[in-house]
Amino acid sequence: MNMIHKLLSLAALALTLSVAAEAQQALKFQAPVTSPEINPDHSVTFRYRNPKAVTVQLLGDMFSDGKPVEMTEGPDGVWTFTSAPLEGELYLYSFIVDGMRTADPSNMYLNRDIATWTNYFTLSVEKDDKGWYYETHDIPHGTLSKRWYDSPTLGTTRRISVYTPAGYESGKDKLPVLYLLHGSGGDEDAWVDLGRTCQIMDNLIAEGKAKPMIVVMPNGVYFNNAAPGYAVNMFQPTILNSRSDSTKEIEESFKDVISFVESNYRVAKGYRNRAIAGLSMGGRQSCAISRSHPGTFGYVGMFSGVVPPATPEEEAALAEQMSDGKAPLLYWIGCGKDDGVKKNSMILKNYCEAKGYPVEYYESDGGHIWRNWRIYLTVFASKIFK
Amino acid sequence: MNMIHKLLSLAALALTLSVAAEAQQALKFQAPVTSPEINPDHSVTFRYRNPKAVTVQLLGDMFSDGKPVEMTEGPDGVWTFTSAPLEGELYLYSFIVDGMRTADPSNMYLNRDIATWTNYFTLSVEKDDKGWYYETHDIPHGTLSKRWYDSPTLGTTRRISVYTPAGYESGKDKLPVLYLLHGSGGDEDAWVDLGRTCQIMDNLIAEGKAKPMIVVMPNGVYFNNAAPGYAVNMFQPTILNSRSDSTKEIEESFKDVISFVESNYRVAKGYRNRAIAGLSMGGRQSCAISRSHPGTFGYVGMFSGVVPPATPEEEAALAEQMSDGKAPLLYWIGCGKDDGVKKNSMILKNYCEAKGYPVEYYESDGGHIWRNWRIYLTVFASKIFK
Repeated sequence: MNMIHKLLSLAALALTLSVAAEAQQALKFQAPVTSPEINPDHSVTFRYRNPKAVTVQLLGDMFSDGKPVEMTEGPDGVWTFTSAPLEGELYLYSFIVDGMRTADPSNMYLNRDIATWTNYFTLSVEKDDKGWYYETHDIPHGTLSKRWYDSPTLGTTRRISVYTPAGYESGKDKLPVLYLLHGSGGDEDAWVDLGRTCQIMDNLIAEGKAKPMIVVMPNGVYFNNAAPGYAVNMFQPTILNSRSDSTKEIEESFKDVISFVESNYRVAKGYRNRAIAGLSMGGRQSCAISRSHPGTFGYVGMFSGVVPPATPEEEAALAEQMSDGKAPLLYWIGCGKDDGVKKNSMILKNYCEAKGYPVEYYESDGGHIWRNWRIYLTVFASKIFK
Repeated sequence: MNMIHKLLSLAALALTLSVAAEAQQALKFQAPVTSPEINPDHSVTFRYRNPKAVTVQLLGDMFSDGKPVEMTEGPDGVWTFTSAPLEGELYLYSFIVDGMRTADPSNMYLNRDIATWTNYFTLSVEKDDKGWYYETHDIPHGTLSKRWYDSPTLGTTRRISVYTPAGYESGKDKLPVLYLLHGSGGDEDAWVDLGRTCQIMDNLIAEGKAKPMIVVMPNGVYFNNAAPGYAVNMFQPTILNSRSDSTKEIEESFKDVISFVESNYRVAKGYRNRAIAGLSMGGRQSCAISRSHPGTFGYVGMFSGVVPPATPEEEAALAEQMSDGKAPLLYWIGCGKDDGVKKNSMILKNYCEAKGYPVEYYESDGGHIWRNWRIYLTVFASKIFK
């Protein structure tokens, strides 16, 4: 990856935002710093100018122990830290300035996770590493649409993100569909922004590693109908916005999503052409929705945290889902070694194995984090519709 | 507007981002604060917890003098400021903590302008005020698509945002098209995020104040082909990324944009069904593109800063654009009273008036800011295709 750092963003601020007139006055005698800078050996240097700060730390997911590291102040008031060489990935980081978490003002790449904004950068050491899959390359690109659909079951219109692969608009083929569900507190933007779905799918398809498919990312919180800025209220989302019972309403109304997609897109029907996957709460939803729609989804992916059927009715529904002619061609559980909800994944895995239901289990390092969910999407999308 | 503040976003941070484990440890004994809070009289209270800070200021575009105001520290380390009652608008603000501009950690609403992120909130005092037009209401909503098109003239594929009004997908009518261009350093996301184009168009159309139309927002920087995160490199955009000569290449390649739109959308053709408008650099481009495509655009809008034709060839082209049967039905210039580039607008206005070309001039308060461009879009979109 080339990280091109233009040095004049502070000037741009003042020219474009009149509110910043005073801030610029205070800043204009300070040379801007470059941060982050990817060095030739793939180590990364972070810089932050703040002569008044007493301590500046760097908190980043490149450090597997989850602890912040101390940055060192130079005579010019610029705090720096250089990492060891890093592998290809998308990395998240923040600065902690005198105890307050803050964004890197030199890096405009920010991602929102629920209500928290964090800086990020991508780094690719070689083609086909993880970072490479999360970056944009000079290949055909699909379309991302943000639409609204009617949900008669919930009595509302709801916003939905839909990825269609390159060439869809001019093509004639009917395409399979992956329904991709977010976690608690998330929304229809989560898989797009944090999940890098468009980049991953464009790259997998261009490399011939995944079939061209439509990826449908609905809003999975039943009492909210759109992401912040597109919902009626300016709510501040929290993980507790998604109550555990939101699975039930999303499960019961999911037919409205399928109906919208199958009547608005050139879709191949039948269970061989439908996949459903989700992370955390969305994993639980994928499990429940596929179970209550036996024979509907040929591929089921559960990322980080699902539990087995809890009632005799749910056990019977899972048995029907797993019966001849209806059993998913792939029933896939992915989880991180250090994920606090790994036990839930293991309970479902063990339950399925005890019952003789085919289940595929994939374990990665780390915990309940987007880094893992991007990996699971990449792996799962490569396995379906083949 | 109801601003619903959920109080648990700090908890969400730790549960969803493992990188934040340490930060949460430091923060977990601090009660979260609500900021901003819209009071019943439409004054707004801002709060920021930082017991270690020496000075905290609020820089916001609700203060017409552009100067920051001092916030007051309470015994709990929470700094506060309450504004006078405000009118309906979308407001931008930041905190300045010991001289460093920083985001409000309690407000996850952030907008990016070029490389600068700023908090925002909307406030509506009554229906049909400006804030009301920038908010989402329970009405039919259009679709926003982020697509890629081929530009044979520039030899690249380029990203483009397209708004289609509610009902487009199920309708049969051919619709008119507004081409809407951003300013220097901007990209195909600018009108969507800062311009609130989807909200404004949904609201205008639902109110019967604008005709249903397609709004096309291309990337107007010829040597860049996509917004940050979707371009090949992780560049840091600046206002100087857009050199003044980028008008020429965008002008020459604009036929590729029209060709893409007219072959991919259900479009009414002819100059009565085409409008072009833009802000700042995009205003100059709207002027130049409409001039070099005489008889193509029935409506031309130039927001904040254009200049008259500079060469005999350009003068002749403008004369042809203004000739019988080709003259735009509306040639509209909007500018802020305090805009540094108002002189450019006046030069074009005076030139047109001296030549007897019909021109409509609209002046608002304030300067070279998005607040004005949202107003101009609202006004201009209400006047076209009628």
